[in-house]
Amino acid sequence: MIKIAVLGYGTVGSGVVEVIDKNIDSITRRIGEEIEVKYVLDLRDFPGDRVESILVHDFDVILNDPEVRIVVEVMGGVEPAYTFVKKCLLAGKSVCTSNKELVASHGPELIKIAREGNNNFLFEASVGGAIPVIRPINSSLTADRILEIKGILNGTTNYILTQMSTQGWEFEDALHKAQELGYAERNPEADIEGYDACRKIAILSSLAFGHNVDYTKVHTEGITGITSTDICYAAAMDSAIKLLASSYCEDGRYYAMVAPFVVHSSHPLYAVSGVYNAIFVKGTDIGDVMFYGSGAGKLPTACAVVADVVDAAKHLGRHIYTSWSQEDLTLTGIDDATRSFYVRIAGKREALEDAVRKEFGDVKFISIKEDPDGFAIVTPPVIERSFKEHIANIPGVTSYIRMEGSSAS
Amino acid sequence: MIKIAVLGYGTVGSGVVEVIDKNIDSITRRIGEEIEVKYVLDLRDFPGDRVESILVHDFDVILNDPEVRIVVEVMGGVEPAYTFVKKCLLAGKSVCTSNKELVASHGPELIKIAREGNNNFLFEASVGGAIPVIRPINSSLTADRILEIKGILNGTTNYILTQMSTQGWEFEDALHKAQELGYAERNPEADIEGYDACRKIAILSSLAFGHNVDYTKVHTEGITGITSTDICYAAAMDSAIKLLASSYCEDGRYYAMVAPFVVHSSHPLYAVSGVYNAIFVKGTDIGDVMFYGSGAGKLPTACAVVADVVDAAKHLGRHIYTSWSQEDLTLTGIDDATRSFYVRIAGKREALEDAVRKEFGDVKFISIKEDPDGFAIVTPPVIERSFKEHIANIPGVTSYIRMEGSSAS
Repeated sequence: MIKIAVLGYGTVGSGVVEVIDKNIDSITRRIGEEIEVKYVLDLRDFPGDRVESILVHDFDVILNDPEVRIVVEVMGGVEPAYTFVKKCLLAGKSVCTSNKELVASHGPELIKIAREGNNNFLFEASVGGAIPVIRPINSSLTADRILEIKGILNGTTNYILTQMSTQGWEFEDALHKAQELGYAERNPEADIEGYDACRKIAILSSLAFGHNVDYTKVHTEGITGITSTDICYAAAMDSAIKLLASSYCEDGRYYAMVAPFVVHSSHPLYAVSGVYNAIFVKGTDIGDVMFYGSGAGKLPTACAVVADVVDAAKHLGRHIYTSWSQEDLTLTGIDDATRSFYVRIAGKREALEDAVRKEFGDVKFISIKEDPDGFAIVTPPVIERSFKEHIANIPGVTSYIRMEGSSAS
Repeated sequence: MIKIAVLGYGTVGSGVVEVIDKNIDSITRRIGEEIEVKYVLDLRDFPGDRVESILVHDFDVILNDPEVRIVVEVMGGVEPAYTFVKKCLLAGKSVCTSNKELVASHGPELIKIAREGNNNFLFEASVGGAIPVIRPINSSLTADRILEIKGILNGTTNYILTQMSTQGWEFEDALHKAQELGYAERNPEADIEGYDACRKIAILSSLAFGHNVDYTKVHTEGITGITSTDICYAAAMDSAIKLLASSYCEDGRYYAMVAPFVVHSSHPLYAVSGVYNAIFVKGTDIGDVMFYGSGAGKLPTACAVVADVVDAAKHLGRHIYTSWSQEDLTLTGIDDATRSFYVRIAGKREALEDAVRKEFGDVKFISIKEDPDGFAIVTPPVIERSFKEHIANIPGVTSYIRMEGSSAS
C-alpha cells in the first residue's frame, strides 16, 4: 500500500481525490500495488466532505510521516509551495505538481534534489492541463533533437480571441464574458498579459533544450492591445490572431517569446479555438508532432496529476531522467529575429504609399470596410530591430502584429 | 554497456541505426548507460555500409548471445518475425517493434510472455509512426477511462483523398501519384482497402479497453469506391471525405470499424491532410485529446522505435504494465449503430423525392453542377440495419457514405 498526501483541497486537489476514488481499480492494476490518500492539507475545514476525516492543517504531520511516499502539491503560487515541496523531496518523498509558477521558478533545483535522493519531481499538469506533452518530450521524443516548440498554451486568451473573432466583440467584452464563465479570473493579468503562457513555454523549452530557460528573460506581450479591427484585418487575410508561445534554435542561437501572431488558415494552430490548447513540437528527424486538448479544467488537470502519481509510484526509489540542468540557456533577443509584420496605419493610403514603400519596398496593402480612415500593410521579412526603425519613419502607424511564418506547419 | 540487435536492415532498420548513431550522447544520458548496436540481421550483404562488420545472417547468433538485452524487430510481416520475437522474449530479451501485423496478430500473447519474464514488448512505432500515442494511452491517460478513439491512421489513403479533393482527381489518378512518390506500394491493397488502418485501430482499442480486439472482427471498408463526384458533394456540405478508424464504448457495448466518413469542417480531423495522421482520444474526465504528426517515414518511425529502446533499457528486468489481456473483447456489429448517411441517387429529384421522404422522412437534398443527372441526400440519424432496408426501397441509389457525428469534436 502506497500512501499519498494532497497539499491543497481547491479545484485541482478535490479533482485529484475524485479521480483516484473513481479509478482506483485501474490505477492499482497499473502500479501493481494499492494507493491510498492518507492526508489532505488545507487551512479550511470541509465538514461532511469525503476528506473530512483525513484533513490536516499542519504540514509537518505529512512531512514527518514516513508512510507518505508521494506528495501531490496543488496549492498554486510559489510560497509556501516551494518550501513544502523542497522539504518533502529532501525527506525522501516524491512530489507531483500542477503548479507552473513553482516549476518555472524552481524546477531545475527541485529536479536536482529529486535526482540526488532517487525520488521524482513530476509536473505534467503544469503545462497544457490534460494534454500529455511533458512526458512525450521526456520519453517519446527522446531519440531526437527538438528544434522548435510553438503553442497556444493559455486557454483564457484563446477563448477571448476566439470570441472576438466569431462574435465581433471588442477585447473588454470578451474578457467580461470569460470572467462570467469562470475562464478568466477577477484579476486576469497573468493570462491576458501573457505571463501564464510565458512560464509554460519556459518549462517546455527548458526540457526540450536541456538547459534552464529563465522565464523572466522571455520576451512577453499580451493581447490587451488587440482590437476588433485587427481581427477584421486578419480575417481579410484568411487568418486569425493567436497568442503564441514559442521557442526555437537556429544556427546555434536560442529564441523564446510570447506574443500575439497573425496565423494563416493553412497553419494547424489556426483551427485551435475556445479554451483548447495545442502544442507543436518540431524535431530534426521526427518532423512535426502536435498535441491538442483541454488546457485546463478540474478533472483534465487532475487526470494529468494522477498519471504522474502512477508514474511516481512505479518509480519509488528510482529517478526518472529529466534533461533540465540548472545552467541557464542564453537567449538571443528577438530584435535579431527575421519575420514579416502586419502594420496598421491611420490615414489615406494614397498619401502614405510612397513613405511606406520607401521604408519596406514591396509591401502588401489591405483595406477593409471596417477601417475607412486607415489601412494596413504586410511587410516582407525583415529583422525586427530594423523593422522598428523603419516604422518610426512612417507617419500614422498605430500598431503592429507579427506574422506567423510557415515553419511549424 | 547495453547491447542491442536489429532484425531487418530495410528502411526502418537503417533509420534505427542512423538515429542511434546521431543521438548516442543524449540517449546515453537518458538511459544512464551506453548502448551499442552489436548485430544487424539481414539476408542481404551491405558491403561498405556502416553495419557491414556487425551484419549477421543467422538469427541464432543473436538469440544465443546473452549480451544482447534488447532486440529491435523491424522486418515487417507476421513470419518469421513472430517466431524470432517469441524466442527472444522467452530467452529473456526485451523486444521493440514497428510491426503492426505482428502486434495486431500476436500482441497479447507476446505481452504476456514479456510480463512473465519481467521483460518488455514495446510497439510505439506500430501505430502513427512518430506520433506518441501508445505510450500516452499506457501512461498519461492512465488515470481515466477511455470512451472513444477516432483517427486518421493511414497516410497513404489520406494523401489520396487529399489529392482527389484539392486536384479534382479520380481515385486511380491519385493512387498512381501516390505510388510515384513512394507513399503507396505497388500492391496498394493493404492501404486502400483499409486493412492497415484496421490493424492499427485494433491495437489502440485493445490498449484503451484492456481486452483484445481481434482485427479480423473489425468491420473494414476501404476508399476504392470514392469518386470525385462524392468529393464534390462533400465540398458542397463544407466537408471532406476521410478514412476514419474508430472504436467506442456506449452503454457497455463496444464498436470498432474502419470506413470512409463525411467529416465536417468544424471537426478537427477535417484539417488533417496529406500523409499526416491524427488520433483523437476521448476520456471520461480528460475530455478530448488529439495527437497529430507524420504517420510514417524512415526517420520518424525510427525515432519512435529508438524511444522504445530507451524505455526498454531503463526497464531491464522490470515489466512496464500494459492493459491488453488475451481475452477477446466482444464487438457489437455496426448494424446496430445509429448515424446519418450521405446517399447518392441517380435520377431526377422531382421524380424520387416522394420515395425518399417515404423511407427517411425529413432528409436534406443536395444538388451540384458536377452531377446533373443525379442528386444526394443526407438522412436523419437512423440505425444502420434499418438504413440498409430503407435504401433498398429507393430506386437509383448508387452509393452511400456514413456521416461523422460531432462526438469527437
